[in-house]
Amino acid sequence: MSSDYQTLKGQEFDRAAFESLLRRKNFLWQSFEPYGSVKGLFDYGPPLEGLESEVLGIWRDHFIRTEKMMALKCSMLTPYEVFKASGHVDRFADYMCKDPKTGEILRSDHLIGDVLEARLKSDKEARGEKVEETEEDPKRKKKASKAAKGAVKLDDKARAEYEHILAILDDFTGDAMGELIKKHDIRNPSSGNEVEPPVSVNLMFQTQIGASGNSAGFLRPETAQGQFLSFQKLLEFSDGQLPFASASIGYSFRNELSPRSGLLRVREFLMAEIEHFVDPEGNKKHPKFASVADVKLPLLSRATQTKGITKPEMTSIGEAVKSKLVDNETLGYFLVRIYTFMQRIGIDLNKLRFRQHLENEMAHYASDCWDCELLNSYGWTECVGCADRSAYDLSVHMKATGQSLQARETLKEPYTVEEYVAVLDKKKAGPKLKKDAKAVEVALDELAQDIKEKLSLEMSEKGSVEVPVATAEGGKVTLDKELVSFSKQKRLVTTREYIPNVIEPSFGIGRILYSLMEHSYWTRPDDVARSVLSFTPRTAPIKALIVPLQRDARFAPFIERLEARLDAKQLSYKVDQSGVSIGKRYARNDELGIPFGITVDFESIENNTYTLRDRDSTKQIRGSEEEVVRAISRMVKGKESWADVQKRLPAFESKEE
Amino acid sequence: MSSDYQTLKGQEFDRAAFESLLRRKNFLWQSFEPYGSVKGLFDYGPPLEGLESEVLGIWRDHFIRTEKMMALKCSMLTPYEVFKASGHVDRFADYMCKDPKTGEILRSDHLIGDVLEARLKSDKEARGEKVEETEEDPKRKKKASKAAKGAVKLDDKARAEYEHILAILDDFTGDAMGELIKKHDIRNPSSGNEVEPPVSVNLMFQTQIGASGNSAGFLRPETAQGQFLSFQKLLEFSDGQLPFASASIGYSFRNELSPRSGLLRVREFLMAEIEHFVDPEGNKKHPKFASVADVKLPLLSRATQTKGITKPEMTSIGEAVKSKLVDNETLGYFLVRIYTFMQRIGIDLNKLRFRQHLENEMAHYASDCWDCELLNSYGWTECVGCADRSAYDLSVHMKATGQSLQARETLKEPYTVEEYVAVLDKKKAGPKLKKDAKAVEVALDELAQDIKEKLSLEMSEKGSVEVPVATAEGGKVTLDKELVSFSKQKRLVTTREYIPNVIEPSFGIGRILYSLMEHSYWTRPDDVARSVLSFTPRTAPIKALIVPLQRDARFAPFIERLEARLDAKQLSYKVDQSGVSIGKRYARNDELGIPFGITVDFESIENNTYTLRDRDSTKQIRGSEEEVVRAISRMVKGKESWADVQKRLPAFESKEE
Repeated sequence: MSSDYQTLKGQEFDRAAFESLLRRKNFLWQSFEPYGSVKGLFDYGPPLEGLESEVLGIWRDHFIRTEKMMALKCSMLTPYEVFKASGHVDRFADYMCKDPKTGEILRSDHLIGDVLEARLKSDKEARGEKVEETEEDPKRKKKASKAAKGAVKLDDKARAEYEHILAILDDFTGDAMGELIKKHDIRNPSSGNEVEPPVSVNLMFQTQIGASGNSAGFLRPETAQGQFLSFQKLLEFSDGQLPFASASIGYSFRNELSPRSGLLRVREFLMAEIEHFVDPEGNKKHPKFASVADVKLPLLSRATQTKGITKPEMTSIGEAVKSKLVDNETLGYFLVRIYTFMQRIGIDLNKLRFRQHLENEMAHYASDCWDCELLNSYGWTECVGCADRSAYDLSVHMKATGQSLQARETLKEPYTVEEYVAVLDKKKAGPKLKKDAKAVEVALDELAQDIKEKLSLEMSEKGSVEVPVATAEGGKVTLDKELVSFSKQKRLVTTREYIPNVIEPSFGIGRILYSLMEHSYWTRPDDVARSVLSFTPRTAPIKALIVPLQRDARFAPFIERLEARLDAKQLSYKVDQSGVSIGKRYARNDELGIPFGITVDFESIENNTYTLRDRDSTKQIRGSEEEVVRAISRMVKGKESWADVQKRLPAFESKEE
Repeated sequence: MSSDYQTLKGQEFDRAAFESLLRRKNFLWQSFEPYGSVKGLFDYGPPLEGLESEVLGIWRDHFIRTEKMMALKCSMLTPYEVFKASGHVDRFADYMCKDPKTGEILRSDHLIGDVLEARLKSDKEARGEKVEETEEDPKRKKKASKAAKGAVKLDDKARAEYEHILAILDDFTGDAMGELIKKHDIRNPSSGNEVEPPVSVNLMFQTQIGASGNSAGFLRPETAQGQFLSFQKLLEFSDGQLPFASASIGYSFRNELSPRSGLLRVREFLMAEIEHFVDPEGNKKHPKFASVADVKLPLLSRATQTKGITKPEMTSIGEAVKSKLVDNETLGYFLVRIYTFMQRIGIDLNKLRFRQHLENEMAHYASDCWDCELLNSYGWTECVGCADRSAYDLSVHMKATGQSLQARETLKEPYTVEEYVAVLDKKKAGPKLKKDAKAVEVALDELAQDIKEKLSLEMSEKGSVEVPVATAEGGKVTLDKELVSFSKQKRLVTTREYIPNVIEPSFGIGRILYSLMEHSYWTRPDDVARSVLSFTPRTAPIKALIVPLQRDARFAPFIERLEARLDAKQLSYKVDQSGVSIGKRYARNDELGIPFGITVDFESIENNTYTLRDRDSTKQIRGSEEEVVRAISRMVKGKESWADVQKRLPAFESKEE
């Protein structure tokens, strides 16, 4: 992959040089370095923290403000019961293989992938073909290569089989991986030992909430559950009207057992998740779909992938939904919004594709799922998942808690049903339940039919029932037959109750930022040592650089005036007064991605004009203090491009670059 | 306290009504309600999430951009060793008393405070004085009152002693509290039992990082440590020049044993922390201090507090620093910046004071500490701590890791010293240490003198030493005398190395938001049921409300035009087309704090003009589509006030309100 991977100027991408820039300019580093660092945990330095802040600002504007979503902030600490119900306690896991002799723990899919890739590479070598560096982690690769013990040729059948396995590696269950490991004699590359069969290991961080020692909790591995549990609040806030969407920018945690690939697989990460709640009746149409139907997206369907093809086809979303390639309008609408978001932050759209999940890769309840993948030097990387989760989440929580997580629709034609009713004796309930009486009444009313039926039976058998009630103390309340009676009654149904379906676009912010940095990176053709990060004026954390021609006290008041004017427009800037040449100062700030530079020279003292330099072209124009700052402000807001500014203001020929 | 506490219009503050508004409008709720909720964990709904986002935007602008701070984002998950060194493992704890008969656990300071307050209240009752509701948690209060068993009169000495204890409750150690409990026969109010002496309980959430089972970790209780550990990166980023400041907006966690007071004492919270690193030589002067020296702040000194006085004195910061009341210019400069930040977000400055820490309240290493306290219905609440932490943090981490966390200053007069030097034999180191050779060389070089001396001794005794090195694997490297030699050498010292001191302003965002909501709350004098949240145009999460006079298809295109124009200016808005009267629609959106309303009426259809309503005064003006939206935009940016707009545009008399 990596030698195919090119910079935005079509140059070969040199990851070592790129990483050296990130380190040198303090974009990020492994956390707790003085203590020897912890794998999978990273700190963001000023340039990356600033980039993240700008990207999140665009995300808020693009989704929350423009689509009028309901922004939520939910707790990260989560009680055990929630993730038991959601299925995470049982299924949020990776398969691991243990090397019984060394005790080493290996992720099963990584193990298979590494060994088969090493064999294919060895086969190529044996057949005298040119071998490309394809692997993400050079160290792991080295081990895998060594295990292949010199170049070994494969027969055509094995070669085809290996390639097929690698293409659909995400599609295997634990058992299937166990069989592959046996069949192909896949061993721990670093020891040559056979490994134990894959076992599932849960990836959530566990802790204890409170001092009592009996309330186990987890750090959430996704922000979604908090949003589902807020469903009734959201419904209230939207005056009972569907569809609506909630959105949450927040941290999640996964206790990765072998973190790797830098920012792509970490233990603590920022997500931006949208939960769009929609009535499942009516084909999940979207009111704004018509406005995007003609947009063409690079779609890589499930069918295409199973043929071993990895190139997406440009397809209009209107056609994709019509042909049922994309399940419904709402899902299709979000794919387009994801695409335009990526465009807005400066992602190279030639390095973006939407890949449909394979059958086994998709959660069992999902009706369709597309990943927005960005190409970077590690390969195609899932950066946004966009899934139709059907009614799964609300259903499981409703079942686990007995609380209604349903929406209502007023029926055009009412009808009659017979159903269980729970009636609380309010006269007795008051003195007995005190301030909880109201909560108990509401809880009883909201119980699902099957639970009422169950409780009715229990009541007639035992004379009392336990009902889950959200009182100040939490927990459950026991009610006897004096307090509550269950009966079957006829009722005129004027509304339809239903569990909404959920379309969930889920953004991994760290992965997007990493890909964006790679997509923005290139080197000056005349000097590969001079690298540039071409962040757009909107996403660049620092908008302008002020450089005086040389150290000279006469420049100071002019620098101050520029600073005050940039401050007034709330534009971030940096002043570089160090002793090196202007060319060098520009070069080193190009590495921070600062889009515009203002030079203060002797002419500035004479007539208050300055040169304005464009980072990408290094071209310059000349204008007054006001003209220069206004041009920057307009380019940052997207009201003008550099080409527009060049037309308006006179060019300036620099002697420095 | 609470009956003294008034709304910004001087009305008695009704907390029940205020909380009802927060619930009704979905500002916040306890997390995981369908599962019975978890204490001390809250979700923010759309209005509060939006408010937080605006307040953080102002914070970033006020501190990070304006003061050119280096923004950082550090990991929440933190290895054990870090908090062992920082002292949190040993000292980040609250004192608890156990009721041995019921097993109940009570925070010692809460216990003492509750019981003594109850006795004072009972004493007042016995003396026939009017009793005010002073307590934050009505339930706890009730218990405490009950324990007082009817009105009991105190003698003058006891009354004075109790009042004194309550005034300086923060100043007691665990042992001192134990003595108080014995001396005053303080018992568990809910059982009447004697309690066990106070014991310290650690408040950090613990977890496990990785699968190996041997890497204990904590969720950080503050963001500061990550910033200290990034010191060398920050120093690099600032080209070695001090002073500089880092800033971090991030989550922290405290496993509160009895969370209470709503948002004021929670288990998971957002902080915004600044670490300003400064050379301790030179009195910690600040270059911008002169520009703020005349600003008067409400200061409540330590001396005043010990006299039992709680009213702050307006003092100019220039004088406060001159008289050494505030320790130094940098601390003073930050107090002013905190004050102007609070003003900018809309805090009522009459409900703000800076309180100096009492002797025992302050950390042992701190040289001075002031809390910015905001008055709300729970009383004076610490919302920002502003401490001079001296060189404590960098010193302890330097000691624990052996890595240098120092800055350098070039000396004007160099001098000669004799010191220990560690020399790595590079020829042997290359083959033996491979890629780690460079890291080992750097680590050796950076070892502190006392550690080099220790290692030199060890080497001559054992022939090998262990050196902590940040290699890819982390951990330590063992070096023998073939590889490294220690000796004492003379050196010309041209630079001074020193551990910078740290001034730390630390903001609790949740507490600020809660106080801001209380400060913004009032009710219309003509109708107490009509409450208002007077968020400023800049902090209000939704800037404008569009209300058509009535449901009428003819209004639709005009609403759309307004929407497009507000969108173009990236102003958030809400359209309320429900069937109720305009007055009612305005009233219920006043509760969301929307500052401006635009009415679309029949005149709009005729001449494209609209009324613009100011939430606080309910006054209206009339203007064209462009004029109305431009006025909103300018008021949000702070370029104009409502009074300015009223002067420019004609008044409009409404028939609705």
